Amino acid sequence: MPELRKDPVSDRWVIISTDRARRPSDFVRKPVPSEPSGSFCPFCAGNESQTPREVLSYRNGTAANSPGWQLRVVPNKYPALGIEGDLNREGEGLFDRMQGIGAHEVVIESPDHVLSMGDLPEAAIERTLCAFRDRVRDLRNDRRLRYVLLFKNHGESAGMTVEHTHSQLIALPVVPKRVQEELDVCKKYFDFKDRCVFCDIVRQETKAGVRIVAETDEFVALAPYAARFPFETWIMPRRHASHYEEASGPQLGNLAWILRSVLRKLDKALERPAYNLLIHTMPPQEAACAHYHWHIEIIPSLTRVAGFEMGTGFYINPTPPEESARFLREAGLS
Amino acid sequence: MPELRKDPVSDRWVIISTDRARRPSDFVRKPVPSEPSGSFCPFCAGNESQTPREVLSYRNGTAANSPGWQLRVVPNKYPALGIEGDLNREGEGLFDRMQGIGAHEVVIESPDHVLSMGDLPEAAIERTLCAFRDRVRDLRNDRRLRYVLLFKNHGESAGMTVEHTHSQLIALPVVPKRVQEELDVCKKYFDFKDRCVFCDIVRQETKAGVRIVAETDEFVALAPYAARFPFETWIMPRRHASHYEEASGPQLGNLAWILRSVLRKLDKALERPAYNLLIHTMPPQEAACAHYHWHIEIIPSLTRVAGFEMGTGFYINPTPPEESARFLREAGLS
Repeated sequence: MPELRKDPVSDRWVIISTDRARRPSDFVRKPVPSEPSGSFCPFCAGNESQTPREVLSYRNGTAANSPGWQLRVVPNKYPALGIEGDLNREGEGLFDRMQGIGAHEVVIESPDHVLSMGDLPEAAIERTLCAFRDRVRDLRNDRRLRYVLLFKNHGESAGMTVEHTHSQLIALPVVPKRVQEELDVCKKYFDFKDRCVFCDIVRQETKAGVRIVAETDEFVALAPYAARFPFETWIMPRRHASHYEEASGPQLGNLAWILRSVLRKLDKALERPAYNLLIHTMPPQEAACAHYHWHIEIIPSLTRVAGFEMGTGFYINPTPPEESARFLREAGLS
Repeated sequence: MPELRKDPVSDRWVIISTDRARRPSDFVRKPVPSEPSGSFCPFCAGNESQTPREVLSYRNGTAANSPGWQLRVVPNKYPALGIEGDLNREGEGLFDRMQGIGAHEVVIESPDHVLSMGDLPEAAIERTLCAFRDRVRDLRNDRRLRYVLLFKNHGESAGMTVEHTHSQLIALPVVPKRVQEELDVCKKYFDFKDRCVFCDIVRQETKAGVRIVAETDEFVALAPYAARFPFETWIMPRRHASHYEEASGPQLGNLAWILRSVLRKLDKALERPAYNLLIHTMPPQEAACAHYHWHIEIIPSLTRVAGFEMGTGFYINPTPPEESARFLREAGLS
């Protein structure tokens, strides 16, 4: 009998098909290539002139926009939003509009033509996590920008267009509806219980163990109880923290270890799947709070979102999270 | 400069890339085949024994589950939810679950092996719309079922698995979050303005004309102001009505005409695209109301939902709805 489960963080119901218990091998998909396509790459060292000028780089004394870097952040060449101008909020009869002000940047995670974050050394993943932190700390000074989404589309079917490993950020002039909903639900939980819902999840799940994928002293990786997608995995800090960008250097080092471990487990269990990764964190201009807890969500591209999901916001997940977690836990590498 | 637009029905912001104005030919996609694959079809006349037993059929005196029908509704062979049993709502520590009780049915729109609703004669589309109405009127008697989503996945990339033209319905034991949000936003608008937001949209859009795709005396088809997707099209009744299943026979006839016209325009402008179609209507057990207005949403599968959309609920639409509407208006057939 299928089961309906409610995600306590978003108040969203999900249908979990407990009958079918689909295994990794039941999903038809194309692995993300491990060999480069051979076409010209604007993200490789030496091709710095082919990207917009960098807004951040980690390098040992070499000049900006020249080789010699370990990581670069550049504006997206085809940005979804523009950084210059005023919002000009206005009505159009009953409708509302504003100018598309915001930032859209690309984090180039390595000077070498590596195709997957999971194949990077831990130090390069740590640099990426530090760049996320540094860019949010910079962008929060722009009072027009109310939210920054840090994310990664890996593999063509997850929306990737350049194969050289990279992440993105989009800074927005409004707090997105989905983020605001999560903040509101977590606030309601806190008002009712006087505890953070994520802290409660960490406590209950580490005790139960069945949905745990990996653990360190600072972080827990798990399959969420009401996972929308097969092999959906969240990584959250054990200690309460609302803002990602306040994480310390050693914490980000620890995070790099567990993130690499999870990505390698996914690559092993699902044969190099495409995936989306995103960070949910408190809006950077808001103060630290007791009710929200930043976390990473990783969603392999295995199922298709169709009319039912679009119309209802309900998801049908053919793989119970207990099964996903078990497959990933057992996927050797750690 | 891109533009942010807010959908007044859902309170969702969308990024419209007014610079790029992508034309139908800019989208890479595989047309939905117009020739049958030749494999065995459980939905064709004569193969009634290959489906679960019908819950509704339109036929001229022949016996149930035998040939001689124009339309059949059968339970889905691989249902997402089961119809037998109790909800058994319960907690699991901080989590909430219930049994997956509900209905999952398939509307077989024609006894012939036609591959696309747009290729059906108007009378067959009208029968489908009547079957939607009749099934909702029946299912609302089951007090466990709080919502019925009527939808269609057309083409493989939209989640279709059987090529013979068919629609689906899923009846749920909770009102889905996305539907409830829309109801709440429309209620807020009504409380503020004393008018239905959809009635206001019909008035403003028919007057402006730029986003209109097609019109009849009973219905308006338009590209919504804050369309999430290129060529997204909504069809809504001109006269206020909260419940789809209360539509009259002549109204459904009129709807069949405009729906067929819109589907043929999409087939022409976008070369037989895959699409999702869904009906948003008031929860059937609730009374008629002044603030909500049922409507159809049609979403061609042209762009990919990736990390940004998943993380924020924001959408990036590369084709301004004014452009989509113009292409569809001018797509000859009517």
